Amino acid sequence: MFGQLHEECGVFGIYEPVVSNVARSTYYALYALQHRGQECCGIAVNENGVFRSHRSAGLVPDVFTAESLEKLGKGNMAIGHVRYASFGDFNFENIQPLVIRHVKGSIALAYNGSITNASELRRQYELEGAIFHGTSDSEVIAYAITKARIQTESIEKAMEMAMNTLKGAYSILLMTGKKMIAARDPNGFRPLCMGKTDDGAIVFASESCALESINANFIRDVKPGEIISVSEQGVSTNETHCGKGSGLCVFEFVYFARPDSVIEGASVSEARLRAGAFLALEHPVQADVVIGVPDSGLDAALGYARQSGIPYGVGFIKNRYVGRSFIQPTQGEREEAVKIKLNVNRSVVEGKRVIMIDDSIVRGTTSARIVNLLREAGATEVHMLVSSPPFKYPCYFGTDISSQDKLIACRFDSVDEIAKEIGVDSLGYLSVESVKKIAKNAKCGFCDGCFTGKYPVEVPEKLQ
Amino acid sequence: MFGQLHEECGVFGIYEPVVSNVARSTYYALYALQHRGQECCGIAVNENGVFRSHRSAGLVPDVFTAESLEKLGKGNMAIGHVRYASFGDFNFENIQPLVIRHVKGSIALAYNGSITNASELRRQYELEGAIFHGTSDSEVIAYAITKARIQTESIEKAMEMAMNTLKGAYSILLMTGKKMIAARDPNGFRPLCMGKTDDGAIVFASESCALESINANFIRDVKPGEIISVSEQGVSTNETHCGKGSGLCVFEFVYFARPDSVIEGASVSEARLRAGAFLALEHPVQADVVIGVPDSGLDAALGYARQSGIPYGVGFIKNRYVGRSFIQPTQGEREEAVKIKLNVNRSVVEGKRVIMIDDSIVRGTTSARIVNLLREAGATEVHMLVSSPPFKYPCYFGTDISSQDKLIACRFDSVDEIAKEIGVDSLGYLSVESVKKIAKNAKCGFCDGCFTGKYPVEVPEKLQ
Amino acid sequence: MFGQLHEECGVFGIYEPVVSNVARSTYYALYALQHRGQECCGIAVNENGVFRSHRSAGLVPDVFTAESLEKLGKGNMAIGHVRYASFGDFNFENIQPLVIRHVKGSIALAYNGSITNASELRRQYELEGAIFHGTSDSEVIAYAITKARIQTESIEKAMEMAMNTLKGAYSILLMTGKKMIAARDPNGFRPLCMGKTDDGAIVFASESCALESINANFIRDVKPGEIISVSEQGVSTNETHCGKGSGLCVFEFVYFARPDSVIEGASVSEARLRAGAFLALEHPVQADVVIGVPDSGLDAALGYARQSGIPYGVGFIKNRYVGRSFIQPTQGEREEAVKIKLNVNRSVVEGKRVIMIDDSIVRGTTSARIVNLLREAGATEVHMLVSSPPFKYPCYFGTDISSQDKLIACRFDSVDEIAKEIGVDSLGYLSVESVKKIAKNAKCGFCDGCFTGKYPVEVPEKLQ
Amino acid sequence: MFGQLHEECGVFGIYEPVVSNVARSTYYALYALQHRGQECCGIAVNENGVFRSHRSAGLVPDVFTAESLEKLGKGNMAIGHVRYASFGDFNFENIQPLVIRHVKGSIALAYNGSITNASELRRQYELEGAIFHGTSDSEVIAYAITKARIQTESIEKAMEMAMNTLKGAYSILLMTGKKMIAARDPNGFRPLCMGKTDDGAIVFASESCALESINANFIRDVKPGEIISVSEQGVSTNETHCGKGSGLCVFEFVYFARPDSVIEGASVSEARLRAGAFLALEHPVQADVVIGVPDSGLDAALGYARQSGIPYGVGFIKNRYVGRSFIQPTQGEREEAVKIKLNVNRSVVEGKRVIMIDDSIVRGTTSARIVNLLREAGATEVHMLVSSPPFKYPCYFGTDISSQDKLIACRFDSVDEIAKEIGVDSLGYLSVESVKKIAKNAKCGFCDGCFTGKYPVEVPEKLQ
Repeated sequence: MFGQLHEECGVFGIYEPVVSNVARSTYYALYALQHRGQECCGIAVNENGVFRSHRSAGLVPDVFTAESLEKLGKGNMAIGHVRYASFGDFNFENIQPLVIRHVKGSIALAYNGSITNASELRRQYELEGAIFHGTSDSEVIAYAITKARIQTESIEKAMEMAMNTLKGAYSILLMTGKKMIAARDPNGFRPLCMGKTDDGAIVFASESCALESINANFIRDVKPGEIISVSEQGVSTNETHCGKGSGLCVFEFVYFARPDSVIEGASVSEARLRAGAFLALEHPVQADVVIGVPDSGLDAALGYARQSGIPYGVGFIKNRYVGRSFIQPTQGEREEAVKIKLNVNRSVVEGKRVIMIDDSIVRGTTSARIVNLLREAGATEVHMLVSSPPFKYPCYFGTDISSQDKLIACRFDSVDEIAKEIGVDSLGYLSVESVKKIAKNAKCGFCDGCFTGKYPVEVPEKLQ
Repeated sequence: MFGQLHEECGVFGIYEPVVSNVARSTYYALYALQHRGQECCGIAVNENGVFRSHRSAGLVPDVFTAESLEKLGKGNMAIGHVRYASFGDFNFENIQPLVIRHVKGSIALAYNGSITNASELRRQYELEGAIFHGTSDSEVIAYAITKARIQTESIEKAMEMAMNTLKGAYSILLMTGKKMIAARDPNGFRPLCMGKTDDGAIVFASESCALESINANFIRDVKPGEIISVSEQGVSTNETHCGKGSGLCVFEFVYFARPDSVIEGASVSEARLRAGAFLALEHPVQADVVIGVPDSGLDAALGYARQSGIPYGVGFIKNRYVGRSFIQPTQGEREEAVKIKLNVNRSVVEGKRVIMIDDSIVRGTTSARIVNLLREAGATEVHMLVSSPPFKYPCYFGTDISSQDKLIACRFDSVDEIAKEIGVDSLGYLSVESVKKIAKNAKCGFCDGCFTGKYPVEVPEKLQ
Repeated sequence: MFGQLHEECGVFGIYEPVVSNVARSTYYALYALQHRGQECCGIAVNENGVFRSHRSAGLVPDVFTAESLEKLGKGNMAIGHVRYASFGDFNFENIQPLVIRHVKGSIALAYNGSITNASELRRQYELEGAIFHGTSDSEVIAYAITKARIQTESIEKAMEMAMNTLKGAYSILLMTGKKMIAARDPNGFRPLCMGKTDDGAIVFASESCALESINANFIRDVKPGEIISVSEQGVSTNETHCGKGSGLCVFEFVYFARPDSVIEGASVSEARLRAGAFLALEHPVQADVVIGVPDSGLDAALGYARQSGIPYGVGFIKNRYVGRSFIQPTQGEREEAVKIKLNVNRSVVEGKRVIMIDDSIVRGTTSARIVNLLREAGATEVHMLVSSPPFKYPCYFGTDISSQDKLIACRFDSVDEIAKEIGVDSLGYLSVESVKKIAKNAKCGFCDGCFTGKYPVEVPEKLQ
Repeated sequence: MFGQLHEECGVFGIYEPVVSNVARSTYYALYALQHRGQECCGIAVNENGVFRSHRSAGLVPDVFTAESLEKLGKGNMAIGHVRYASFGDFNFENIQPLVIRHVKGSIALAYNGSITNASELRRQYELEGAIFHGTSDSEVIAYAITKARIQTESIEKAMEMAMNTLKGAYSILLMTGKKMIAARDPNGFRPLCMGKTDDGAIVFASESCALESINANFIRDVKPGEIISVSEQGVSTNETHCGKGSGLCVFEFVYFARPDSVIEGASVSEARLRAGAFLALEHPVQADVVIGVPDSGLDAALGYARQSGIPYGVGFIKNRYVGRSFIQPTQGEREEAVKIKLNVNRSVVEGKRVIMIDDSIVRGTTSARIVNLLREAGATEVHMLVSSPPFKYPCYFGTDISSQDKLIACRFDSVDEIAKEIGVDSLGYLSVESVKKIAKNAKCGFCDGCFTGKYPVEVPEKLQ
């Protein structure tokens, strides 16, 4: 909406002991994961080796009608995908799950992440005779697996070999005629967890909220580097690629994930409350009310309020009725038009010194407009606090960011200058040390590359 | 969502000094009023007496595309309408605005409310030769005005005469070739306010949030019984029907209106905070956290938390991605399926004594399910508080309610029995005295008929 | 397609002895009548007094899906309508059948024709308090019937009274809770026939081809001025308005009706063959091949070929795949773009002297283009013959024509001048005397007002 | 409609000297080729190496809206495709043109035909690591070309090499960043011709009617085995694969092609007239009228009438208003429901001895129904003549046929038995010798494999 960061994807998979309505379960789970991607979605159903799929641009409840779900039919497995599509990348061919047909059996795959050596691999495969229909990395992954598969006896082994080839971030769900495979890159940049329903189905999802939506019980997170295989023979695991040091994207806690999800043992909403509390300790401000920018700034604001004792208020009302084709105000109208989607609740801020908390500042233009709205509504002071450190470096692992020259933290030398640009009385960011502590007792390490420029793995030079 | 109360409608009108993009302004304003009706919507544009309209079932951003807005064209006036349609009442003919063509000039009208003597009037008109295309009261209103219009010299006078005939609740916007008329029933059951844009357009809306969405400034509420006419000659008013004692529906503050709206001088969100504070005084409970049921219970929960000192928490996560045709779980799945739309945030309630605040209880089944979810998530005690009195009598003035035999407060004699039915450790309702005080300094009286059975005007026997 | 004449409508009605799938029968019958109107269509179903309707812009198989037919449900009666909509008259409110709800019972009506005193009646009704939603005459008819109905005891009598009021052309089908009424204006300008299915249903249709499509047997034409009523008591007739001299539109035989229909006892295709034969007698030409302009010129060409002995050839291929939104070539491309829809079959005309037969010439521009195509394809001579007389006067009875100043026969004084304008070597029209003889043994008189300016009934001055 | 034969596809390509509206030209050309495939269609536009495509299920004017054509934008080349899809083969992935992205440049391809060794090639490619998205042969062709391309210096040479690999029938249009390639299999089973517009664009199409629709002039047919390349350097040709003996599918003349097309120098409509004349010589019958089954039987009937002197009549009226989702009568209704789409013109056949000519008999059930309709309409005798020989063997070269056990000519030993099954007084087929003579002066040989079982090339055993 407001030039924010974008997660690239969310994935879900289900393996049922018997043929059942796996499309419907996947539909509800994708609906729960909709916040991870609102542009495209798809479901592939596997009925004893016969694959049927439906994918299109649009929100889950728009793309999947009663009719299209019925056409997908029943099955013993299904995988689904939701996706944010960057501009120019909106071809049908790029919508996942990718279904490919092969003499060794059909496979369908969906993934979340970004393959850093995709263009090298693509070029290499093409020179060997491969053809690509779309531009997404999913076809590169499919080739890597297929090429391994024809040299080895099992899909699990083929995945292990493919992981020697693929660099970067990936949480993959893959469906063969008889097996469901879940794999996570050795650093575990993107989350992936496993659950089980009461009737014995094994499910995988980017976030635990998807498990809850279909009444599945959380079992555990897939480990960084782990390959889990589910089949009639049960669940098996391959940990060849494990143990290389984990680096979960910290923005999953700060912004991407749904508050009711639990990742690596830590509650997302609690992490945001803690971020707010850390902010209160690092940046004490004299004020009358603490408000958050919806949706992910709300928990941090509440955390700040609790720690500081300053009252929490609901300062903004966000319009929830998003349609397929909402007509955006024209550029000329836009300066004032933020309020069509986000209106200030005047009674909360009028005549008050306001602390406003947001999860991040990307380009700064939206923050400036929102601050302006608060002043128009009568706020006497506006102090902005950000529940993450300044965003200064590109992400190569699945977060869609503006180029560096648009990042406000790159354009200005000091926080004071940014504060001036945005028009606030004061501005504070959460420190890098603190942001890595917000996920209480989390069982993983974190990637903080976008704050520090230091990435857990080498990044190909041509991407930099 | 969950068998809740339904407001029937929202209206918006704009009178521009020059021909301009009134359809677009109406589009944004209806988007801001979407919470008042999600089933149907429509816009009628008036370009110097030429009327063009578009109306259909669906959300505002789904019904109005760039193409349909362009077809509506420019104009100097427009009115729009959003609507909740009760089952069986889904005919195109019933979608407003109603546009009629007449030798004395075309008119378009949209209204919010309920005409209590509609069926008598309809029968009378039909026996005089009238024909009706649909089943909504809007055609009855149109006949009442038309029949008056052919006997008098002006539309304002015709409206005054029609108001002698029409009984019940109505906030009407009416557009003739040259004038915009706004009228409110003598009791002012439903809200209607007036504003002005910087470039001189006069606007009317059910709620002030619609004014803000298009940067119009609030001027004042239309008075109960008042008729306001806007034309090239300026703004004039007729107060013949004023002064009969106002009775605004208190549920506008409790539940229907958007928190950032101001009605009769009182902030809606502040009213809800105050409802929570009154609840804290009337029903003190020992607990560890106060949570609200989204969306309208949230402010009341925050108000209770502030008054009581018990921490406020975000106990539920509501899924926001509503599509046109979300596939509901089947009846069999439904018991557990509340969580597809509303999931408990386990980290907030686990191991805690919880106060859960909702705005009302209608049939009680949804409350029971939500309480069950809280217990499953580990709440050790669940105390439910309701920010309005028990709902025991039918509403004849524009709120869609279940028949009395489904109302939980009618089915059981005592609050304790209801508490047992819902499965809570304790239950408390806000008193009738307090609910009338929640709108701070409101300049109006309130209708509390649904709590007390005493209505501000006589209700036709056959309706009872 | 090519600036041709347009019939306004086609109607169909079915009365079943028991509740059955009347919507489906009506769907197939409307499909058979699609040539009478391709812009809008609608069906109203009557299930023991409960009316459900669906109507929209589009072709019958586009508007009615399996889903919309299912929503219409079963019934014991249904009426349907297809319609050509002139520009600017495309409002939903004007799409028939019109369904109105009334204290004396709901009615639905559909009609084909044109009420010549509609605007006077409309004004009169409005001054009595009536309101109109659309601009079509169907609401005027509904008011005329309703106003009569409240003064008399039966719908049949009300229809008889309404026919005292209504002037012009109308073939009406009307459905009350318990009865199906069919009525035709006293001159019988537009056709209407009655049939019966093997299982006892009574059906009415504009043309007999609709009866055949649902395997109903033709019984007879409704007489000019006759009112037929079908109910549980059987079929009754009222002939009060009969005997005023019939004047069927001769263009029903020349152009509008489907070749396999039989009207007033005469086969339409045979009438066209006879028109061709009369042309051969009136306009003998030396030539090598006779071709017709699809579709209605084909039979006349065959008739000419048979009478003259000159070989018949298929000179044009018409593209049949008409979609909802075929993108027309732009004005600049249009001169040459006739051939996208109508291509010359070169092998038939190359090096030959060609007689080309069409049913009429309206503005002449399309004829000129087609003649040019023939010459480009190598025709050495092009002789055009028209199977109707020159079209010189407006029609007030249901045919949509260009204003007189665009009619080529009004713009030029002589046939030779028209021939020169169109670019043919010779041109001949069928005589007025002959065109009235083409329908062999037809049991009716004909209106030839558009050729002669003499109409069977007086035409209101203001229309002229 | 009636269990008839189906052509698999039609193709069109345009190479413009400058960037222009190639999408629009392709749209009109595909509209002219719609009879070759009504299930799916697609267009790929090439703007100096940037490819944009749109493809979907549906008729050309339904799939391509003003909006989708605008999104395709302008370009210097485009190719398009229409397609009949057999049941179960309706995946998006199979709709052409196929667009693939490759390090050596993107290519788009569309083809008409059937690759007889597709499954062997597919298996071989998959074992080398290839992945397939769909099930159509177009991906196999793309791999064959790509694999050749990476071993050679030019696309023309790559196509020549690929043609060593590909067996069967194919008329291919292929677009690289800078070139348009047209190629036809060495036997030339399917037609493909070349034309030129007045402004210098080179175009290719399955049939010449597509050239005429956009005012392009016919140049010549692409030769069997020829590869034509169009680029900035002009038009070049490669005839390496030419001269292997041509075998055009004779059904192109009998049934598939549009009557106004010219293939290999012979007019299609004239070929059908000649087929009728040969029938008259081989099967003289005493009768009163000759009628054809629409659409392709009409010309043959006219040819029979001319040769025999028996009058030609229009015995059937076909409903032309085909929608996207016409609701078929249920199986129970079907026996009688042929007439919804095809009604007998009673005045033409009543009381007469009728000769009915159709292009082929596949399963015989539809013929039996139609004959029954004629008898019901009063025909005293019905003699059926077929303008092709009995259809006894499968086609491996792009015609979709029922399996042999459904072919009536396989189920019965003699023509008399078939006549009895269909219910005609007599039945005659055109001889194999005559059918090969119908295309007057055609410059090619013909495949008559479906009549004789002798195919111009070897057919893989596993297909037989």
